[in-house]
Amino acid sequence: MTEPTTDMSGLRRARQRTADILFSRDREDPWTQRFDVVLILMVALNVVAVILESVATIRADWGAYLHAFEMLSVVIFSVEYVLRIWSAVDNPWETKFRSPTRGRLRFARTPMAIIDLFAILPFYLGLLVPVDLRFLRVLRLLRIFKLTRYSGSMTLLFQVLRQEARTVGAAMFVLLLILVIASSLAFIVEGDAHPSGAFSSIPATMYWAVITMTTVGYGDVVPATALGKLLTAVMAIISVGMVALPAGILASGFSAALQRRRDEVEDRIEDALADGDLTAEEQAEIEDLVGRLNVSPADVRALMTATRRSAGLPCPHCGKSHWAAPWRGGPVRLYGVKSSGTTFGTS
Amino acid sequence: MTEPTTDMSGLRRARQRTADILFSRDREDPWTQRFDVVLILMVALNVVAVILESVATIRADWGAYLHAFEMLSVVIFSVEYVLRIWSAVDNPWETKFRSPTRGRLRFARTPMAIIDLFAILPFYLGLLVPVDLRFLRVLRLLRIFKLTRYSGSMTLLFQVLRQEARTVGAAMFVLLLILVIASSLAFIVEGDAHPSGAFSSIPATMYWAVITMTTVGYGDVVPATALGKLLTAVMAIISVGMVALPAGILASGFSAALQRRRDEVEDRIEDALADGDLTAEEQAEIEDLVGRLNVSPADVRALMTATRRSAGLPCPHCGKSHWAAPWRGGPVRLYGVKSSGTTFGTS
Amino acid sequence: MTEPTTDMSGLRRARQRTADILFSRDREDPWTQRFDVVLILMVALNVVAVILESVATIRADWGAYLHAFEMLSVVIFSVEYVLRIWSAVDNPWETKFRSPTRGRLRFARTPMAIIDLFAILPFYLGLLVPVDLRFLRVLRLLRIFKLTRYSGSMTLLFQVLRQEARTVGAAMFVLLLILVIASSLAFIVEGDAHPSGAFSSIPATMYWAVITMTTVGYGDVVPATALGKLLTAVMAIISVGMVALPAGILASGFSAALQRRRDEVEDRIEDALADGDLTAEEQAEIEDLVGRLNVSPADVRALMTATRRSAGLPCPHCGKSHWAAPWRGGPVRLYGVKSSGTTFGTS
Amino acid sequence: MTEPTTDMSGLRRARQRTADILFSRDREDPWTQRFDVVLILMVALNVVAVILESVATIRADWGAYLHAFEMLSVVIFSVEYVLRIWSAVDNPWETKFRSPTRGRLRFARTPMAIIDLFAILPFYLGLLVPVDLRFLRVLRLLRIFKLTRYSGSMTLLFQVLRQEARTVGAAMFVLLLILVIASSLAFIVEGDAHPSGAFSSIPATMYWAVITMTTVGYGDVVPATALGKLLTAVMAIISVGMVALPAGILASGFSAALQRRRDEVEDRIEDALADGDLTAEEQAEIEDLVGRLNVSPADVRALMTATRRSAGLPCPHCGKSHWAAPWRGGPVRLYGVKSSGTTFGTS
Repeated sequence: MTEPTTDMSGLRRARQRTADILFSRDREDPWTQRFDVVLILMVALNVVAVILESVATIRADWGAYLHAFEMLSVVIFSVEYVLRIWSAVDNPWETKFRSPTRGRLRFARTPMAIIDLFAILPFYLGLLVPVDLRFLRVLRLLRIFKLTRYSGSMTLLFQVLRQEARTVGAAMFVLLLILVIASSLAFIVEGDAHPSGAFSSIPATMYWAVITMTTVGYGDVVPATALGKLLTAVMAIISVGMVALPAGILASGFSAALQRRRDEVEDRIEDALADGDLTAEEQAEIEDLVGRLNVSPADVRALMTATRRSAGLPCPHCGKSHWAAPWRGGPVRLYGVKSSGTTFGTS
Repeated sequence: MTEPTTDMSGLRRARQRTADILFSRDREDPWTQRFDVVLILMVALNVVAVILESVATIRADWGAYLHAFEMLSVVIFSVEYVLRIWSAVDNPWETKFRSPTRGRLRFARTPMAIIDLFAILPFYLGLLVPVDLRFLRVLRLLRIFKLTRYSGSMTLLFQVLRQEARTVGAAMFVLLLILVIASSLAFIVEGDAHPSGAFSSIPATMYWAVITMTTVGYGDVVPATALGKLLTAVMAIISVGMVALPAGILASGFSAALQRRRDEVEDRIEDALADGDLTAEEQAEIEDLVGRLNVSPADVRALMTATRRSAGLPCPHCGKSHWAAPWRGGPVRLYGVKSSGTTFGTS
Repeated sequence: MTEPTTDMSGLRRARQRTADILFSRDREDPWTQRFDVVLILMVALNVVAVILESVATIRADWGAYLHAFEMLSVVIFSVEYVLRIWSAVDNPWETKFRSPTRGRLRFARTPMAIIDLFAILPFYLGLLVPVDLRFLRVLRLLRIFKLTRYSGSMTLLFQVLRQEARTVGAAMFVLLLILVIASSLAFIVEGDAHPSGAFSSIPATMYWAVITMTTVGYGDVVPATALGKLLTAVMAIISVGMVALPAGILASGFSAALQRRRDEVEDRIEDALADGDLTAEEQAEIEDLVGRLNVSPADVRALMTATRRSAGLPCPHCGKSHWAAPWRGGPVRLYGVKSSGTTFGTS
Repeated sequence: MTEPTTDMSGLRRARQRTADILFSRDREDPWTQRFDVVLILMVALNVVAVILESVATIRADWGAYLHAFEMLSVVIFSVEYVLRIWSAVDNPWETKFRSPTRGRLRFARTPMAIIDLFAILPFYLGLLVPVDLRFLRVLRLLRIFKLTRYSGSMTLLFQVLRQEARTVGAAMFVLLLILVIASSLAFIVEGDAHPSGAFSSIPATMYWAVITMTTVGYGDVVPATALGKLLTAVMAIISVGMVALPAGILASGFSAALQRRRDEVEDRIEDALADGDLTAEEQAEIEDLVGRLNVSPADVRALMTATRRSAGLPCPHCGKSHWAAPWRGGPVRLYGVKSSGTTFGTS
């Protein structure tokens, strides 16, 4: 009677181990590392394969190999997807997927699970329904989104995008206003001067307006009348300022978000150094925080030295006060020094 | 004798209710909400209709329907305009429109009232005076400006534009200087090399100069001489820095304005939390302020948690001090919120 | 014997008055105002005249009038230049021009005096030496620089340019590096593929490289080989980041400079309000400082209210504390309110 | 027996002096100055020579002179390289090159030493192996990197690049995602509409996509179908925001890095002024720090005056308190300096 229990328990341990490997962020575990390397490599190779397969000569010569690789990829990504659904209940970072059925369904609705599903779905759909082969091939590129799991900075980028969504949206609305008005004016002014029909309707004119306002300026459609040229010049000047605005707002938001993260690490470092030295445990905690917040190591080093110095603590390397050292000594070294981004605490 | 008074009073109540619906920003009132939805929908449909009507084939097939929709729109917007003028005296946010005649005239001169008038005026003018039909149609696009009423972020954008007007103006003046000088030099250098007449006068050359300096670069007019190419290269390098300057100044100004608003909310939160907890009334006040200042809810949440933490207050959810939690435990998470731009207050 | 003295003294008074009018920044003096308006108008009309004169048909029809206007302009600007040199010794803001000969020579070497000289010199040179008429006409555009005298913001712009010169220079040096290397590579890769000779030498290739790196992208010269296209794509990606860098640095520097000025005004306001109220004298001093530092009035109003509030002073308009008012009351008014760029202190 | 020692000691002294000249940044030493001037001049002339030599007519007429100059350059740069390797053991700023063999090998692997080697290597390789002459000539342009030694600001630029590498990398990854997806969609939509083959494969389409997304927009490849034009418009709008993001992040990072350096100098100045005056030694130390950190002198002057003022110290020139002066008197001026980016310390 205990056997099935033991068996279940063995399966359970396997499931737990699988969840550890699939969902962990612990870079120390060798199996997590191996899994991550394989997955990243598979996605990268898939993207390269799709791009190469689109070249007619390569498809003719290497088609069979590319097809075999696609089969292999589908198998690997399918197994990965099934394992993720299966082990989601043991996800160590999330308790709301605990329930066997509901929890798994809930997990299947998370953005990353949907991305994983879309990586394999087109293949199985292609088996059932006849789909344009070229389109099907390109759909494989969706697999690239599986990499978002590994980019902490990209997560930050999306957070900033969401946070600044309202102001960026306002700038976009103003751009839409300018676009609609400029297109309409150009349609009235240039409408009859183009036998090609480039300004024959407002939607047609909008293509030209977007290409001009984003400063792409192909030149396949250009104003022909003097009034149209004046309108284009005014529009170019206004849009050059407005179009760069969303990017500027995003960049500022990005900087501010990074600064907030640095400040948080700084607070923690100050707290850790308050008692005069840094224990191994405190060091580990700070490193953990730094990893999770995606702060660059150079920043952390600078923050630590600055905190030490302002607290009047001696340099951990030379044992001397940091106030004494930096003003004397040699110039900033270029040769053979891995220059550090900061000038604090060169000992 | 009391009847007319009662009647007047009924009319007055109707007027007051109308003013409440038309001028209120109280999202809780269902009639205000319905009115706003109808207005936004009407404007959006109007813009789409004008754009579609400019396509010859659509106009041929659906012209009658589009005309009927235009009639309906004019009626709706006319009724709205008359109601606004009529009920302006009861505008709950403004006392200077109180006087029946003068107040209404004063109201009719406000920017939003003028926008509302321009949304219907072209139609009535078209009945009286024969106007080019195509131009008349496009004038309907002015209705899009009615939406500015609903965009708090856009209001902020215009405030920043006005606030930075002097510095942006200075950058624009420098650009104008460069434009005039570059056009004149190109006119001298390239003047005779273009049979098309693209450089035949300074105004003609200015079109080329603007298209180059804004980096649109259609390529319909390009320098032909070696000296002209050198001039173009120098001009492109200088202008690429100067042209991006106004956008950069605006983006900085925008960020600073948002920061000031966040600071104001922060001050208020600190004040509310000074006594150790947050009453329902204080919460309502802060929400009101947040709504009026157009600060994003994510920011507010972060500010509140940061304030709590620095005041040494316990987390309202877990009852623990916020200083203990964040360095241990799982990935970054905000109080039951999927993810946010900040990392404060991980529970 | 006293007569010449009186006469001299009369002349001296005239000179002093002239200096007051020409060099003053006192906008209250009606003669200074009139002189400024005439000068700005003359310069603007001169620029318009030169631009119009470059159009052949306008020159044919209106040449005589334009010539007469040019004569008038030369007379006015010559008189202005002579008066400036003559009265420089009485310049109220500068003591180093006091000496009759040396002081005047020193004054003649200041940037603004040189600009004033260059506004008239071409005309007199044209009388002596035969110069290309077209070139001479365009030289008149230099008069536009006389306006720099009136733009405080532009002065700030040039100060920021000078202050950030080293970092902008470094970014420019990196761009030069990329330009030289990209041009050389393109010359090797594309050199033989273009019968037009667009890539026949490194200098020729540099024109294409600058047009590409600044994202102008005329399209008159495009890569023809696959390797050339790859090189162009890489170059476009790198340069799009590097080219925007100088503008970004300048914009940041600009914002910082404006902030420093606001801070200085804020310091002064805090100082003035330290005793609880604002005397007329203090108000005048702050207005003077604001004028000299070119800070926008909206900023000043915000600073004053913020200072008042943080000092616990009552609002000068309503007599109530600013802490009480803002959280209650109505939403942000749009209709009929000259919105103020800030939300502090709406009473 | 002592002779060789003396001889060695003489050689050693020569080596030490060579190291001083080659590695020093002491601008006071006349020989260091001369060496620097010669080196910068040689590099600049080499770049000009390579560029000129690529022009067929110049190569025909001046080929012999250009060849002679190349010989001279190789000799000079070879001697320089040998001297650097030889004297590296006496590098005054670095102790890890002390060992005669290992230290020199370690030195030879530093970035600057590799740049120095690449400046001469192509010439010697060309003697041994037959290489394309044109390619060999262009390789000489690598000598331009020898100038990086002299640009402190450029070092800062690279530090900022490295520091922001992760966030810039994330933005680049998002751009890569957009590029791959946009190229694939355009390949599907436009693939068959272009006989020229511009959209015949994804790699071919990528050239068009990069040229569009960076807003270069040559116009040599443009979408032909309505769907393709819609795709292009959407892509242009998205990319115009994303492409400017890395530059914005870099610019912000740059400003922050400069600010940190200014803060460090400010700390030092405050420290030096803590005792009420500035000794010659303190002045020298600050100047040294300013030189090493590459802070602009205008900033330093402003910082010093601000520190003095906030410390209540009198102006060193007029002896008056700085709080009294600035609100009265004439236009803004800095201590005998024509104009500056700050307004502190008007006397």
